[in-house]
Amino acid sequence: MISRRRSLAIAGLAPSLAAQARAQADPLPSWRDGPRRRALLDFVAAVTTPGQPDFVPPAERIAVFDNDGTLWVEQPAYTQLIFILDRIRTLAPANPAWQGDAVLRAAIAGDMHAVMAGGTEGLLRLAGLTQAGMSPEAFQRIAGEWLATTSDSRWRRPYTALVYQPMLEVLALLRGQGFTNFIVSGGGVEFVRAFSEQAYQIPPHQVVGSSFALTPGEAAGRITLTREPRIDFVDDGPGKPVGIARFIGRRPIAAFGNSDGDWHMLRYVTEGPGRRLGMIIHHDDAAREYAYDRASHFGRLVRALDEAPARGWQVVSMREDWGRVFSAP
Amino acid sequence: MISRRRSLAIAGLAPSLAAQARAQADPLPSWRDGPRRRALLDFVAAVTTPGQPDFVPPAERIAVFDNDGTLWVEQPAYTQLIFILDRIRTLAPANPAWQGDAVLRAAIAGDMHAVMAGGTEGLLRLAGLTQAGMSPEAFQRIAGEWLATTSDSRWRRPYTALVYQPMLEVLALLRGQGFTNFIVSGGGVEFVRAFSEQAYQIPPHQVVGSSFALTPGEAAGRITLTREPRIDFVDDGPGKPVGIARFIGRRPIAAFGNSDGDWHMLRYVTEGPGRRLGMIIHHDDAAREYAYDRASHFGRLVRALDEAPARGWQVVSMREDWGRVFSAP
Repeated sequence: MISRRRSLAIAGLAPSLAAQARAQADPLPSWRDGPRRRALLDFVAAVTTPGQPDFVPPAERIAVFDNDGTLWVEQPAYTQLIFILDRIRTLAPANPAWQGDAVLRAAIAGDMHAVMAGGTEGLLRLAGLTQAGMSPEAFQRIAGEWLATTSDSRWRRPYTALVYQPMLEVLALLRGQGFTNFIVSGGGVEFVRAFSEQAYQIPPHQVVGSSFALTPGEAAGRITLTREPRIDFVDDGPGKPVGIARFIGRRPIAAFGNSDGDWHMLRYVTEGPGRRLGMIIHHDDAAREYAYDRASHFGRLVRALDEAPARGWQVVSMREDWGRVFSAP
Repeated sequence: MISRRRSLAIAGLAPSLAAQARAQADPLPSWRDGPRRRALLDFVAAVTTPGQPDFVPPAERIAVFDNDGTLWVEQPAYTQLIFILDRIRTLAPANPAWQGDAVLRAAIAGDMHAVMAGGTEGLLRLAGLTQAGMSPEAFQRIAGEWLATTSDSRWRRPYTALVYQPMLEVLALLRGQGFTNFIVSGGGVEFVRAFSEQAYQIPPHQVVGSSFALTPGEAAGRITLTREPRIDFVDDGPGKPVGIARFIGRRPIAAFGNSDGDWHMLRYVTEGPGRRLGMIIHHDDAAREYAYDRASHFGRLVRALDEAPARGWQVVSMREDWGRVFSAP
């Protein structure tokens, strides 16, 4: 017979051992226990357990992730916009005619809000003007070098260190369970491809994004591809389901977003038959990251937030649900 | 000391044992020994052996394959064309106005050569006319049902049984060595996606092809995507490098084709830096399959064949290099 004192000691010990064991096996250590964490784990268990009614074969386990504000920080501005403004300032002295264009003038002055008045298309127009005339490979080298040498103004870290640790854990959990993860971003596809493999273990062909026209040609006896300033495809809002159908060719079963630009994608994914997961990352943690939704220039979130309960979408509170925010310590 | 007779017996036995061992480990049992088989195996060994000068990390091991005439039969006509003509004949009674269009009239009469006079674009126009107004998912169901219920006129087998066994072995060899295989086809992307996973173990998102515009909308409270009759992208000839850059986002290191429609792709791939493999399947086996190149309506091969030696492309003789042609016994 075990004394009451001894049994209390064991009882006191047991949770600690259980916590240790759980931590070792826990695929989501940066997620605090709660309805969102449980919804994630329940969904994964439901679609990956053979014999269960919601089982989905591995080939059909497709998950899509918005990038800006869902996988990495998007304040004080989209990283790609900061990159474009940097490029414009670098190239402006050699292009005096740019002073005649109101949006380019705002860009040279660093007025991000004026630049963003044109929305995703305005941003892409600027990107096209300043990043055309080169091959996709040359552009990715420029973007990669910029990312390797530029730091965020608040944290003084490279942008690729400002990816969300809890989302890296979701990506790894799904990958380990036979999912194929795709980024479906309003940003330029070649910009995201410049860092997706290093930052997220997502290869270039699993990145869907906006794009410029590419013109094939020949120079010095070699096939060339040249980026044109003309927008070919805007992978934002209603464009996201189109990009998914075009690039992935199969309706995903899980979608993660954070803004109204993801509303169509969240609907397209969660309106499919069978068990689905729609998840919205709500930025409500000004201390550790930022707090914004309805009034933000970047990542504006109104309709998707209002409709989330009726549509069964999980709204993740960064403040409550995430024990840690960034991948960098 | 071993008698001469005994040593001869051992010598006679040795190749047989060696052949057995080789067959067990042989990744290419349907390829006859020769320069093309050796070029394939040498290439794979060179890019996958750590420490070797031509080593390529797994993430960059991308191989691209044309479909018609490279992975499956394309005579007496592209399978997709046969499908389109079948659809046109099925739908013609309900569309009397089609008799006023010369190409549609030829299609209804089953005159494939008249239909093909318009090239890939003409074929895609017909496909667009007869396959628009539905979702990509609905189209893939129709194409999948047609493939499951239609037989080739010569072999009386489903088209998916007329894939080339030696190429299935190449796909499996590369996949086993960490490659990611893509189809890059002039055919409609959704048609190829209807069978690529079953026939080749290539998932829909690893299929690049020609496409029609998709229009997002809403019906009965759900997001819809509707195929338009308007061609969005022609993934043939100079379009293949564009499709590769757009969908794959990384220059492949190996390309397999069989016609001049693959010339740009073969160049784009083999002009990249480092060790590359370009391979042309030459249809020279009228007894077991078909013999055609310069004069064919389908899979015309002139320029790529003439330039192969100078460009270092391997020309596979189906007659000499393949011990077996089709996957079906």
